[in-house]
Amino acid sequence: MTKATVVGVGMTKFGVHDQTLPELFADAAFPALDDAGVAQDELDAFYFGNAMSGLSENETHLAPKVATHLGMTGVPFQRFEDACATSANAFKNAVQAVEAGVHDTVLVGGVERCTPETGRDTPEMTRIFASASHRQYEQPAGLTFPGVFALLTKRHMHEYGTTEEQLAEVAVKNHYHGSMNDRAHFGGEKTVEEVLDGPVVADPFRLMDCCPFSDGASAVVVTSEDLAGSFDAEGVDVTGNGHGVDAVPLGDKDSLPETKAARDAAREAYDEAGVTANDVDFAEVHDCFTGAEVLATEALGLFEDGEGGPAAAEGRSRLGGETPVNPSGGLKAKGHPIGATGTAQITELTEQLRGEAGERQVEDARTGVAHNLGGDSGTTVVTVMEERE
Amino acid sequence: MTKATVVGVGMTKFGVHDQTLPELFADAAFPALDDAGVAQDELDAFYFGNAMSGLSENETHLAPKVATHLGMTGVPFQRFEDACATSANAFKNAVQAVEAGVHDTVLVGGVERCTPETGRDTPEMTRIFASASHRQYEQPAGLTFPGVFALLTKRHMHEYGTTEEQLAEVAVKNHYHGSMNDRAHFGGEKTVEEVLDGPVVADPFRLMDCCPFSDGASAVVVTSEDLAGSFDAEGVDVTGNGHGVDAVPLGDKDSLPETKAARDAAREAYDEAGVTANDVDFAEVHDCFTGAEVLATEALGLFEDGEGGPAAAEGRSRLGGETPVNPSGGLKAKGHPIGATGTAQITELTEQLRGEAGERQVEDARTGVAHNLGGDSGTTVVTVMEERE
Repeated sequence: MTKATVVGVGMTKFGVHDQTLPELFADAAFPALDDAGVAQDELDAFYFGNAMSGLSENETHLAPKVATHLGMTGVPFQRFEDACATSANAFKNAVQAVEAGVHDTVLVGGVERCTPETGRDTPEMTRIFASASHRQYEQPAGLTFPGVFALLTKRHMHEYGTTEEQLAEVAVKNHYHGSMNDRAHFGGEKTVEEVLDGPVVADPFRLMDCCPFSDGASAVVVTSEDLAGSFDAEGVDVTGNGHGVDAVPLGDKDSLPETKAARDAAREAYDEAGVTANDVDFAEVHDCFTGAEVLATEALGLFEDGEGGPAAAEGRSRLGGETPVNPSGGLKAKGHPIGATGTAQITELTEQLRGEAGERQVEDARTGVAHNLGGDSGTTVVTVMEERE
Repeated sequence: MTKATVVGVGMTKFGVHDQTLPELFADAAFPALDDAGVAQDELDAFYFGNAMSGLSENETHLAPKVATHLGMTGVPFQRFEDACATSANAFKNAVQAVEAGVHDTVLVGGVERCTPETGRDTPEMTRIFASASHRQYEQPAGLTFPGVFALLTKRHMHEYGTTEEQLAEVAVKNHYHGSMNDRAHFGGEKTVEEVLDGPVVADPFRLMDCCPFSDGASAVVVTSEDLAGSFDAEGVDVTGNGHGVDAVPLGDKDSLPETKAARDAAREAYDEAGVTANDVDFAEVHDCFTGAEVLATEALGLFEDGEGGPAAAEGRSRLGGETPVNPSGGLKAKGHPIGATGTAQITELTEQLRGEAGERQVEDARTGVAHNLGGDSGTTVVTVMEERE
């Protein structure tokens, strides 16, 4: 079995876009192909992620539509949907296919539009997102995702004493990181007071504890390590991949703040890579809400259980701290175009591990981890990537 | 690389069901596990297909919900969506994973509800299905799928002289086959006159040229040939798999009646299996409309181009004829719960190749082919299965 290597990355600015989904995706895919120095006809397959466009734009069977627009209808395409973990799962499947020799060089990516450019306003899009919560037990109760993560986080506060100030520190940190990423939906210097002064969305979350609805696309080119040398860009190795699944709805989980799927996925990914949490130099985690980042950093073992909040407040997860988390700005500041988020994390890992992240470069970054979560943490995919030796 | 073998199959009756999607899927999955004699904890992964439930039932992130209901949250799940080719593509990915040794034994299947039990009536469901047509070039023109396949078929009639009577013969044949399948949505003896007397849906299609909207689920257990002997049921080998992609919208295709994706997929599948169309003893093809079966039988090389219509009229594709097509009744009579259709075809192939198809058994069935098409023939997956030696 060969190792899989990322040799090209591309993403659009996350924010508001008025293009069609195939056009928007092309603005990530072509830069990724250019980065790798690969032509469409050198690709063997396409692993495509999109989560909600059936509901948001009456758009299904999107893979061949995108293929047609890219001028690459000759290769097999498949669309994945696993809520917010959509393109991380497409990436996992692509990596497995390359490792196993099913395909040599593949394109992986995702696209989504979530802003009012779709014709859907925020309340309507919130309802659409809630299609990922349990149809019989959660949707009828009006449980949308701010509420789902508020419940997870409230329990964490109860068990460990995590505070609203600590959550606000996560938002402040990620906006600071986002201010150094020109593809981020939002950046800028915020203060804890500004976050705590915001309107409550779902207790304990205020407006700035929540990631925005964004439009955007991301794409990466994956090949085998044997072929990596023939491409233009420096390859970054995918050394571990884990995929955990936990019960849905929330009421069926053994523990809320544990996020079991993430722990299972992290264990699997670390084992495959032969690393431990101590080896991780930085992480991109699924901070759809500030509390979700706290839970994720603990599930990944970057901080002890209960230490995620204090760690953020103490700057331990800030650029320059012991383990920078979300140097891209994360979902919180960079934005969250659902189906594009997973491979956008892979893009950030790749750029950091190449040493090409500019102002937001993590010092001595050799090992990075991505954590992409779907739904109420029912699905989590964790990826370990390492600088090529 | 090992060969993949199907060792268990299960499906619900296709028709009208008032269960939730996880419940309905369980009614196919548990029989498939029982057939194989495998317990949930012996499975390594789940490849899951569902096409439209976001739009039809506000249900996304369905894979972990189904996993929870089945009591198997421990293994990686992924949901595929490629319009009507959804579960055939899930099956292709599962077969590749088993062949490559990524997983040993996996569950593959799909579920869909399309009847008014969803709360959507036929016009509304027709609009939902049309999400698979081109968003910018076809949907605004009101092109729903009866119209899409009417255009493909009209061109075939123009080029080859195919007649409405020949199309009606396809419906009559498939209803006859369906009358011997107790899981079929519709069966019974129909006449050409009855079909031709029906109301026009989209010229040249009358009501009985169109498959019904159905609810249902199907599931299969795939393992490697090395392990096949340890299961209860007789294994049936997957010897070829092909996946073709053609341009979307219709206006971008080089030819309408050619259905290029199907020809590419058939060539790939036959080459991998080392067979030709002459070796095929029977086929399950995607007859969402009678004209689609005519095009499919030609694309698969079962009949010469232009001969698909006459072949149906002459009984060459009827049980007892030279190459029975859709012995299950096909989408036309068995029904078409979108995401369940692909693995339902695999279920029929498996039962036929085991010699367990009862009244509708194809004599001396050694090699069978499945043809599952998505959207306007933008995606087609072709599978060759053979009796174990």
